[in-house]
Amino acid sequence: MATKGISPTRAEDFPAWFQSVVREAEVAELAHVRGSMVIRPWGYAIWELMQAELDREIKASGAQNAYFPLFIPLSYFEAEAKHVQGFAKEMAVVTHHRLEEDPDDPEKLKPGGELAEPLIVRPTSETIIGKSFSKWINSYRDLPLMVNQWANVVRWEMRPRVLLRTTEFLWQEGHTAHASEEEARRETEDMLEVYRRFAESFLAMPVLTGEKPEEERFPGAVMSLSIEAMMQDGKALQAGTSHYLGQSFAEAAEIDFLDKEGERQLVHTSSWGVSTRLLGALIMSHGDDVGLRLPPTVAPQQVVVIPVLRGKDDDAVRAEVEAVAAEIREQSFEGGPVRVLADVRDREATSKRWEWIKKGVPVIVEIGPRDLDQGVVAVRRRDDEELGMESVPRGEFGSTVSSILEQVQAGYFDRASERLSSRTARGIESPDEFREWFGTDGEDGAARGFVRAPWSEAAESAALLEELKVSVRCIPFDQQLKPDSACVLTGKPAVVEAVFGKAY
Amino acid sequence: MATKGISPTRAEDFPAWFQSVVREAEVAELAHVRGSMVIRPWGYAIWELMQAELDREIKASGAQNAYFPLFIPLSYFEAEAKHVQGFAKEMAVVTHHRLEEDPDDPEKLKPGGELAEPLIVRPTSETIIGKSFSKWINSYRDLPLMVNQWANVVRWEMRPRVLLRTTEFLWQEGHTAHASEEEARRETEDMLEVYRRFAESFLAMPVLTGEKPEEERFPGAVMSLSIEAMMQDGKALQAGTSHYLGQSFAEAAEIDFLDKEGERQLVHTSSWGVSTRLLGALIMSHGDDVGLRLPPTVAPQQVVVIPVLRGKDDDAVRAEVEAVAAEIREQSFEGGPVRVLADVRDREATSKRWEWIKKGVPVIVEIGPRDLDQGVVAVRRRDDEELGMESVPRGEFGSTVSSILEQVQAGYFDRASERLSSRTARGIESPDEFREWFGTDGEDGAARGFVRAPWSEAAESAALLEELKVSVRCIPFDQQLKPDSACVLTGKPAVVEAVFGKAY
Repeated sequence: MATKGISPTRAEDFPAWFQSVVREAEVAELAHVRGSMVIRPWGYAIWELMQAELDREIKASGAQNAYFPLFIPLSYFEAEAKHVQGFAKEMAVVTHHRLEEDPDDPEKLKPGGELAEPLIVRPTSETIIGKSFSKWINSYRDLPLMVNQWANVVRWEMRPRVLLRTTEFLWQEGHTAHASEEEARRETEDMLEVYRRFAESFLAMPVLTGEKPEEERFPGAVMSLSIEAMMQDGKALQAGTSHYLGQSFAEAAEIDFLDKEGERQLVHTSSWGVSTRLLGALIMSHGDDVGLRLPPTVAPQQVVVIPVLRGKDDDAVRAEVEAVAAEIREQSFEGGPVRVLADVRDREATSKRWEWIKKGVPVIVEIGPRDLDQGVVAVRRRDDEELGMESVPRGEFGSTVSSILEQVQAGYFDRASERLSSRTARGIESPDEFREWFGTDGEDGAARGFVRAPWSEAAESAALLEELKVSVRCIPFDQQLKPDSACVLTGKPAVVEAVFGKAY
Repeated sequence: MATKGISPTRAEDFPAWFQSVVREAEVAELAHVRGSMVIRPWGYAIWELMQAELDREIKASGAQNAYFPLFIPLSYFEAEAKHVQGFAKEMAVVTHHRLEEDPDDPEKLKPGGELAEPLIVRPTSETIIGKSFSKWINSYRDLPLMVNQWANVVRWEMRPRVLLRTTEFLWQEGHTAHASEEEARRETEDMLEVYRRFAESFLAMPVLTGEKPEEERFPGAVMSLSIEAMMQDGKALQAGTSHYLGQSFAEAAEIDFLDKEGERQLVHTSSWGVSTRLLGALIMSHGDDVGLRLPPTVAPQQVVVIPVLRGKDDDAVRAEVEAVAAEIREQSFEGGPVRVLADVRDREATSKRWEWIKKGVPVIVEIGPRDLDQGVVAVRRRDDEELGMESVPRGEFGSTVSSILEQVQAGYFDRASERLSSRTARGIESPDEFREWFGTDGEDGAARGFVRAPWSEAAESAALLEELKVSVRCIPFDQQLKPDSACVLTGKPAVVEAVFGKAY
């Protein structure tokens, strides 16, 4: 089929391709305020599907949702010096509580009612949730306390990119307090495992799991874990993080409890989160040169049925479209009814077809008067690179929908897994080879991929990494370090195996 | 049963009783920043149940969820002069995007990076959503456009009250654009009907539906509709609003479209919303002197089963508690499994019992060793004013749970309906009688209720209303104005029948 592709293609200019897909699939747009975005209905519906699934998992883990204030007093940040330093202090500051007429120009408004203490729009909620925990926790019986919040957060961005780096974004942030270090560390690991399963089985996006090196830790954390995915341009995207915060936040916020022996102890805390950045990860993992491609799990519509009207038999065609949609709705996928739309809007069939292809709907069905006569439906699978159309006897189609959706889901995951594996170099042993791998990007700026190699964790390795704009993505859990290995960057004795990559 | 009541009681001091229930039921608390609140897990779980139900209704009405920026450029408000005036301009203003070390005191931080244009934290999103609509709408084929947003909004409150009047609150705001006035008005009415059904069947809270008088309209609206509920102190609480905005917002944001004849036309817009205020309405509708009482529809746990441990047979009792909970979970209420918790936490049974009573759980079941021996469970219904406990043969209880929950739901609604009806005076005919009704509040500050009477809509009626701190709550849809009636306030010819009341 002659395609109406995305311009530029992935190979021509991956970042520009990404922007185009986000726009043409009507996922989101930067608008109104520099660095802020509108998440459009199609993008938001994908986010809601992610939310629903993660929310179930988070609740099953024992956490409860709650909501904490958007504004944090400036003084809370002063008490958290170590934490705030890491945040580069790029935050939105509220200094006034009123708009007044500008005395110089009655058409204009200006800020009035200056606040005694400026308020910060939350960049994350450790400080404020910590203060609440300190009030709520008295005894070991109140532990563990596990709270999750779905919220907007703000971190001022000088170079915003839609969905990837925006001043305001949506996320969930979990915060937990435990009686022991062991328990808090286990929680940190358990939540990373929730994120891994979610990324792989729900987003069809294979990820590496591991610990962040010290310099990449969340400010104030003792241990930061992450899931890391490889985008189609070979770059890494950190898709979720989970932190063991030790007792430093507990100390700052005075979160203590009486243990079973009646002694006062500080709690151990953890925090973990994922954000609307996952929408960007989804697009860069599965999209192609025609637009978005959605795994059925996160497709707001898994099947769209379009009438092809020719002026004759239109009513019969429309009725057939509704009937086929109703049949599909009776099929199930992942434990729920198949989400199907009979798109009977007053538009050209071609323009509808292209809209849904660009939006990544897994299966598109078209029905015209001739199909009606012949008792067939025309089926197009979004995971077919040719976007070919197949005539299927109507009576047969319904029963195959579920298995087609399963194939699409598995196919996207397999393709992404193949990429992650084939573009992760394991034989690189010297700084020269390392430089060769990361210094020879394609003309499009795409990276060749990851390097998995022995690492000394030595400070001297920083210079080469900085030169190549490469970072340690994680120290993977499944360590395969051979004894007496030399660090790929410094030649010194390696202490861990690390995964290196360029990152979003 | 000797009760551990709320102090003060409703009759002693209704506003203070409300604060106590909010605190003791762990629904919410004012904290951290003046006027801001934390919605605690129990309160947030109630809100999530409300959200899930309303979200289904909103989607069924054809609207799609989306998300728009938190920050609105100051200039958008200047363009909306009429709209902004009504908002009293009490809004949070962001003027800086950085925290810097204070050169005078390195322990301190101060705002840095002044913004060229201040940003307003959204008090509502008409202006920003209007600008997006203007980009998205080109032809009549793009209409109607119906969008809903679940979000936090900020309106600076000088005299905050938890859940009722807070600087930040959560809400949903729907915004729709239509080709014709008729269609936009119908949408405005349809959504009010969604809110009415939701309030009555989900919150067990009977409401009046009607139009707001001109002076109470949303700034810029042509028509504002509301649902009004009566709290136990006889005061009105506006529980949801729906506005027909005419073409003024369309004009300001330049939202136009090519109609079928190829002519440019302005759209007609509507907006509608409900907020976390409904949590306050729920408490003041159904709570009693012991705490919160939740209709089963919005109870995060509809039944809690508590083991009464005596040191002997404890394992058997715990097993029985889990078994009974499992049986209850197999029962259904309103189309879903009954939400039941086996509360096996390491605490005294008495303290657990009181926690769940105060939190308003509809049915509390206790099981001790003696019950186990006798094959019974001890059942306490939250809607029983005596909070009496009844021994029920274990085999019988499970099958009765659904009908008990239905009775509790219906009972709360009936009680509230009876109040609304008996405390709405219909025979008041003169300003003196009117003054008598509203001027003789109880010592507790409670109001006698509403007055439903003929009204002239004349400007002169304002003085008496202001004196008595009474407002026209609505001009109810079911007008029963008799011909030649005189206005209760001015004696002039009445043009409508109005409902008057004191309000939150």
